[in-house]
Amino acid sequence: MHSWHEECAIFGTWGDPEASRMTYLGLYAQQHRGQESSGIVSLHEGAQIVHKGMGLVGDVFHESDLQRLVGTAAIGHNRYSTTGGSLQDNIQPLSAELLNGPVAIGHNGNFVNAQAVRDELKKKGSIFQGTNDTECLLHLLAHNRSDDMIKCLQEALPQLVGAYSLVILTKDKLIAIRDPFGFRPLVLGQRPIGDGSFSWVVASETCAFDLIGAKFVREVEPGEIVSIDNKGAHSARILGKPQRLAKCVFEHVYFARPDSQVFGLSVYESRKRMGEILAIENPVPADMVVPVPDSGVPAAIGYSRQSGLPFELGIIRNHYIGRTFIQPSQSIRSFGVKIKLNPQSEVIRGKRVVVVDDSLVRGTTSQKIIRLIRAAGAKEVHFRIASPPTTGPCYYGVDTPRKSQLIAAQHSIEEIREFIDADTLSYLSVEGMMKAVHGSEKEFCAACFDGNYPTPINEENI
Amino acid sequence: MHSWHEECAIFGTWGDPEASRMTYLGLYAQQHRGQESSGIVSLHEGAQIVHKGMGLVGDVFHESDLQRLVGTAAIGHNRYSTTGGSLQDNIQPLSAELLNGPVAIGHNGNFVNAQAVRDELKKKGSIFQGTNDTECLLHLLAHNRSDDMIKCLQEALPQLVGAYSLVILTKDKLIAIRDPFGFRPLVLGQRPIGDGSFSWVVASETCAFDLIGAKFVREVEPGEIVSIDNKGAHSARILGKPQRLAKCVFEHVYFARPDSQVFGLSVYESRKRMGEILAIENPVPADMVVPVPDSGVPAAIGYSRQSGLPFELGIIRNHYIGRTFIQPSQSIRSFGVKIKLNPQSEVIRGKRVVVVDDSLVRGTTSQKIIRLIRAAGAKEVHFRIASPPTTGPCYYGVDTPRKSQLIAAQHSIEEIREFIDADTLSYLSVEGMMKAVHGSEKEFCAACFDGNYPTPINEENI
Amino acid sequence: MHSWHEECAIFGTWGDPEASRMTYLGLYAQQHRGQESSGIVSLHEGAQIVHKGMGLVGDVFHESDLQRLVGTAAIGHNRYSTTGGSLQDNIQPLSAELLNGPVAIGHNGNFVNAQAVRDELKKKGSIFQGTNDTECLLHLLAHNRSDDMIKCLQEALPQLVGAYSLVILTKDKLIAIRDPFGFRPLVLGQRPIGDGSFSWVVASETCAFDLIGAKFVREVEPGEIVSIDNKGAHSARILGKPQRLAKCVFEHVYFARPDSQVFGLSVYESRKRMGEILAIENPVPADMVVPVPDSGVPAAIGYSRQSGLPFELGIIRNHYIGRTFIQPSQSIRSFGVKIKLNPQSEVIRGKRVVVVDDSLVRGTTSQKIIRLIRAAGAKEVHFRIASPPTTGPCYYGVDTPRKSQLIAAQHSIEEIREFIDADTLSYLSVEGMMKAVHGSEKEFCAACFDGNYPTPINEENI
Amino acid sequence: MHSWHEECAIFGTWGDPEASRMTYLGLYAQQHRGQESSGIVSLHEGAQIVHKGMGLVGDVFHESDLQRLVGTAAIGHNRYSTTGGSLQDNIQPLSAELLNGPVAIGHNGNFVNAQAVRDELKKKGSIFQGTNDTECLLHLLAHNRSDDMIKCLQEALPQLVGAYSLVILTKDKLIAIRDPFGFRPLVLGQRPIGDGSFSWVVASETCAFDLIGAKFVREVEPGEIVSIDNKGAHSARILGKPQRLAKCVFEHVYFARPDSQVFGLSVYESRKRMGEILAIENPVPADMVVPVPDSGVPAAIGYSRQSGLPFELGIIRNHYIGRTFIQPSQSIRSFGVKIKLNPQSEVIRGKRVVVVDDSLVRGTTSQKIIRLIRAAGAKEVHFRIASPPTTGPCYYGVDTPRKSQLIAAQHSIEEIREFIDADTLSYLSVEGMMKAVHGSEKEFCAACFDGNYPTPINEENI
Repeated sequence: MHSWHEECAIFGTWGDPEASRMTYLGLYAQQHRGQESSGIVSLHEGAQIVHKGMGLVGDVFHESDLQRLVGTAAIGHNRYSTTGGSLQDNIQPLSAELLNGPVAIGHNGNFVNAQAVRDELKKKGSIFQGTNDTECLLHLLAHNRSDDMIKCLQEALPQLVGAYSLVILTKDKLIAIRDPFGFRPLVLGQRPIGDGSFSWVVASETCAFDLIGAKFVREVEPGEIVSIDNKGAHSARILGKPQRLAKCVFEHVYFARPDSQVFGLSVYESRKRMGEILAIENPVPADMVVPVPDSGVPAAIGYSRQSGLPFELGIIRNHYIGRTFIQPSQSIRSFGVKIKLNPQSEVIRGKRVVVVDDSLVRGTTSQKIIRLIRAAGAKEVHFRIASPPTTGPCYYGVDTPRKSQLIAAQHSIEEIREFIDADTLSYLSVEGMMKAVHGSEKEFCAACFDGNYPTPINEENI
Repeated sequence: MHSWHEECAIFGTWGDPEASRMTYLGLYAQQHRGQESSGIVSLHEGAQIVHKGMGLVGDVFHESDLQRLVGTAAIGHNRYSTTGGSLQDNIQPLSAELLNGPVAIGHNGNFVNAQAVRDELKKKGSIFQGTNDTECLLHLLAHNRSDDMIKCLQEALPQLVGAYSLVILTKDKLIAIRDPFGFRPLVLGQRPIGDGSFSWVVASETCAFDLIGAKFVREVEPGEIVSIDNKGAHSARILGKPQRLAKCVFEHVYFARPDSQVFGLSVYESRKRMGEILAIENPVPADMVVPVPDSGVPAAIGYSRQSGLPFELGIIRNHYIGRTFIQPSQSIRSFGVKIKLNPQSEVIRGKRVVVVDDSLVRGTTSQKIIRLIRAAGAKEVHFRIASPPTTGPCYYGVDTPRKSQLIAAQHSIEEIREFIDADTLSYLSVEGMMKAVHGSEKEFCAACFDGNYPTPINEENI
Repeated sequence: MHSWHEECAIFGTWGDPEASRMTYLGLYAQQHRGQESSGIVSLHEGAQIVHKGMGLVGDVFHESDLQRLVGTAAIGHNRYSTTGGSLQDNIQPLSAELLNGPVAIGHNGNFVNAQAVRDELKKKGSIFQGTNDTECLLHLLAHNRSDDMIKCLQEALPQLVGAYSLVILTKDKLIAIRDPFGFRPLVLGQRPIGDGSFSWVVASETCAFDLIGAKFVREVEPGEIVSIDNKGAHSARILGKPQRLAKCVFEHVYFARPDSQVFGLSVYESRKRMGEILAIENPVPADMVVPVPDSGVPAAIGYSRQSGLPFELGIIRNHYIGRTFIQPSQSIRSFGVKIKLNPQSEVIRGKRVVVVDDSLVRGTTSQKIIRLIRAAGAKEVHFRIASPPTTGPCYYGVDTPRKSQLIAAQHSIEEIREFIDADTLSYLSVEGMMKAVHGSEKEFCAACFDGNYPTPINEENI
Repeated sequence: MHSWHEECAIFGTWGDPEASRMTYLGLYAQQHRGQESSGIVSLHEGAQIVHKGMGLVGDVFHESDLQRLVGTAAIGHNRYSTTGGSLQDNIQPLSAELLNGPVAIGHNGNFVNAQAVRDELKKKGSIFQGTNDTECLLHLLAHNRSDDMIKCLQEALPQLVGAYSLVILTKDKLIAIRDPFGFRPLVLGQRPIGDGSFSWVVASETCAFDLIGAKFVREVEPGEIVSIDNKGAHSARILGKPQRLAKCVFEHVYFARPDSQVFGLSVYESRKRMGEILAIENPVPADMVVPVPDSGVPAAIGYSRQSGLPFELGIIRNHYIGRTFIQPSQSIRSFGVKIKLNPQSEVIRGKRVVVVDDSLVRGTTSQKIIRLIRAAGAKEVHFRIASPPTTGPCYYGVDTPRKSQLIAAQHSIEEIREFIDADTLSYLSVEGMMKAVHGSEKEFCAACFDGNYPTPINEENI
């Protein structure tokens, strides 16, 4: 089950005869990262063409839209509101006319000092037409009169603090940038377009490359500015002293598609390892391991393999759930969960069940799931979370609940266990999680678990 | 038949418990001035709420949208693209966050020096997110750090040249402005809201007041800035030496609804007078007067009355025409016109018919209408235009064809008569038209007829 | 203003390479006769293809639907619910598979003995899948095992009493039928399809022929069965002793489009004559004649011409009214009418106004219109109705209010005058109306005015 | 991956204060059995209320529709076209007015002698308004003048041969029927509605009961007519000599939801057993077992458990695929499959992979999947099908390809292996499948696998 809301997906391509169509596909493959709105900007003879709308990729774009988005370069964005509410004006990519031509930006992340930068910019006469923080970057670029966009970026970006993976389309370049912390993923690839030629592609996750038949080349490095034009790809650096790395570990816990490579690692394999280590850290005598589908499946496979307990699809997910659903007027117990998940009493009746989920945020959904599992006849329910207790919100581009709504920030594990009514409850340790991603707290940001925010946080500004 | 495309409608209200709902109605009544997009911004506790979309007022707003648009002040806009193409980003009202709070603007008109102002502003670091020229005013306001919005406007507006009637909503004011030329109409009214109280309303045309039961108070004067807040309405002036007046005569010829008062005159009565003077200037022996419905009806009534020839609805208009229509694959002669207009052969067969239309722009529609009238059996067709030959495009907020497509700019009246295949063709004289609006070329802009543009025109910038 | 709801439109064509497209256009031109649903059945290689839906013609059919409706023969139907409620199953044309192949029927009218026939048919094992009475005819045809469809119809139709104009499509014929009373109109035409050839077309009104460039040939006669196949058109008679004629006079009063020829007469000219005779029968000293648009316009022209009083568009109709409209939450007086009609105070202030409408059914709309006219400053309001008082419902295919809701059935003219608050109120006499349609009560049904129903009426069955 | 198209779902309830809402939910839970159209008929004071439409349950019904469907009894139907094409007129439940009142029918299955019955009925004067075979039953009931609906059914049903699970709603009863062969599932349950009372519910699958909190009571037995009214549930029999049982084994292979109990068995457990027996019958040295998601997952779990090879989600399914999807104009290899399924090269590169799918019909999809798996780097691909070769179409209510398109009907297993390019290919044996469902070919219909059709088949009539 969804732990918390997703963030955003970005995609870009240069030198592709089907640029907007490939961008559409790249967004389609990355739909899991943002379902609220979608947009594509293409570049044709130095001018930009825009199509954006609220909704899923498949609803926002029709054949005629893609035909209108001519040109051999394009960028795209799927958004789940982070800052900025759900206003139509915030749909990305943002585009604007600057002194040196049109610029469009797709942003995955969040600037933690956006409010201060906005205030400063307003004093200089900048106006803000939307409420999302990406607009700050446009203004900073606009205040630089240099002709060299890379130089403008090198001067503007150090003024912005936080998480950002960016795709930028100018009149003659596609630019891909990843912040010096490396919070969000960003990958570089090449798509064969015939005759041994290839186009360049940039995406949040490698699953976008798989769909369009592109080859993964490498990650965009933390602090790197990759600019691509008709002469090829060039690398530059964001100026300023390099700081610690802070790759978001939650990408591996929940956000990314299991079939993506993120930060150089298979997400599916990381999740299995999280399940394996979870089993080592928190064994329990039981009859079977049941995942909360779909997000808990890889960890449950790992838990099953390590523990030797059989893996069973004890909860079936209904994949025909649309976005709207008419409630019964009389209450049916745990109805909201039941419409999506159905525990199989034939499988779990009388059994001791280990239930594995990827994370536990508010606890209310877990409570309902366990209630359904007990109603289906389980003898014991052992809840296992394949990540540590979430104790802090994310300020780096994820739409998380406030601290007061994070159950683990307010309650002990025993209190949570009681609340969700599990026989036992255990979490993966931070160390276990780091081991699963072959990393350490020096390279990864685990602030939502350990409270070590890599940047200063002024909570009032958030 | 439509001579050329409409322009825009604006509306504003202050102090109304149903502010957004009244704005909705005010836009509904002014739908004839713009059918491409519509938007409302309301003010609630110092913050602005926005809803905008492509399409007719009735399609853009649903009950839930109006419920979300809380607050006792609001402005709205119907748009027909003038400059700026049809991009979603150009839907008005435009709104932005400035140093001193949110500002929303609804604009009817066009700045003729917008490109120069944009270029200047870009050099100062302004970015342009849309392509319509209203954004210039937002930037000019943003570069003024004064707290006094009226003062900011007084400093900004003299930098902009052209036609503008504006409604502006700030954090604590509704402001209505009409350019010093007075190109576009703008009227001020009051709506009773119970207990002897009233709200203030501003609209392009008085027909908006009629629908919501508001009383017409007066026109906003050319060069006037009316600002309305909780203490009442205040008047200020746009700075700079006053220039000639230039009220758009085409508002009376075609744009405005016949039941509106525009520039202090009943549009219906003006159009009847145009028909009467047309009959005096261009009499012809005939059996009847037939209007091209609906726009030619008032002038045809006037022509009939003056000439003594009977008024007949010889052409019937089908009002069930939707926005889309499937064409027959095999061609039916003059099909595009026929779906809307059907000449009645029972009425006109064997008759000498005076056909009255409000204006003649390209000539192609008139040609088709006359072909249908002849096919229905008319013996003679005398085409009478209740305005002079249109020889120049409008640069003041109307979406007109280029000069090369204005038939009267390229051809003599005799050539046009031959092209549309009328037995005779006559136009109203410029003098006759001025007489009909009780005015002169000193107060009215008739540049599309006489070429006397009230402002410098740099055609390259348009 | 609408007096009462419309009925239905039918259309058929045989031998046309664009059969379904012409049917679409024929329905489009007849949209005024039914806006609830629309359907087309085409015939291709002996099989029928169906597309039907709720809504206007332009909304029900898309290009792909017309492409699917292949074949050189088709029939179509626009419906306004008469009997049968608004169920989707009642959308016409109705089609069914009979022993001798597929049969589709489009019906304008109503069988007054439908319930008795249904009861009888159910006893014989017939099932009724919809609730409209047209299904009876399908069942009667099904119980006849003859191969000859004309013979089947000749045997079935005498069992059905009431009003019916029908288009029927079989596996090899287009059949057009008009009941012996001739209640509803039905016209026959030919459309040139190149090389001197033509297709046959059938429609409720001639305005459908005008749009598609077809030539009016003649009316289908009361009691006539016209069958059209590849050998041409053939005429047969409905069996049984001929009864009186009963052509619906309300077609001329309100239903038909003014540009149609109905029962051999121009509707526009009839309406003008109604206005002229109304002026002769009910003169009044006044300053002007104002129509209630659009339906009162022709009669007002007649009234003006006869009386010598000037014709003025004193009430302007807003043609941008969509099908949905959000009401203000606080009441605005007479709002429902005001959104459509706006009296011009500039025109009528201080004037004695003759207001002409086509008919007056419930009186509530007239009351609101007069209230608006008075609020606009009229000194006197003289209401003139271009038809007699409506005192009875229609049982012949029109959706009318019950007798209890017909104000003239319950109240004297003086009481009605008082209710609508007119200074004077007069109606056209039945004799005057008959004179206007060049006929008498022997050929026309005027039952809604004079109570002389041409058939027995069992009110319980209705 | 889908092997072949689904069939239909039915649902009924009696005595429920939220009857239509529960029916909506019951259909929602059974959406997997039919996605083309959906309909509900409710019973209110002896009259039936209908709402039907094309599309998914969530799209067809809105809150206002359910509010209109008042009453304490209702039936519903999800349809995937079997016979009858996709015409709107065929959306079920079918309803009709008979001599003794309204009757509505929801049908899962197919009458194999429908054409003969139709021909006979047409001779008796019946008309067929749709093309689906359920209409036959309505006509047979209509020709019986008895007041006793159960008696009518007992006389009508022996005339119909084939597969049918039915829910029927009359003016005073809910009736559930299963054909004597027992082809399709049908289950009976009770839903608590407070105060110790319960309503009766009928559904195709038990997963519908789970969602609404109803308790499974028992299966409707083959040949049983269960009628439910206000006095309770009563059982009767379809007349005629009982024949062999013929429960559809494909319900367990693919159709039913894994969390349903079908024919008294857990579908999930059957599928796991199929996988286990498949592993016993067709072992192969390999590194992992990978399911084709989602349908192959349970069998893959069984295969993995039996073989000891690790279970891996080597192919990831994208669940955000909407119903429309814009293709790239330039071809991307195997694009159609890739948009749904993405093999993980990190998992399978260099590995010997056993791929498990539920069935193999045409072979084209399997070919594409294997191509993707090979492109992802698998060393060996061993394809294992958890059912026998499909050699015959289904005539009992499933939309299957013709025999000529069933690859196993035309080719040897070796030829198929070569076509799909697997290293090895094996199927489950018919005996193994029967063992998995704890049954034999005497009780189950496995005609699509073994050609033993339980009824005479006249292929021309199908």
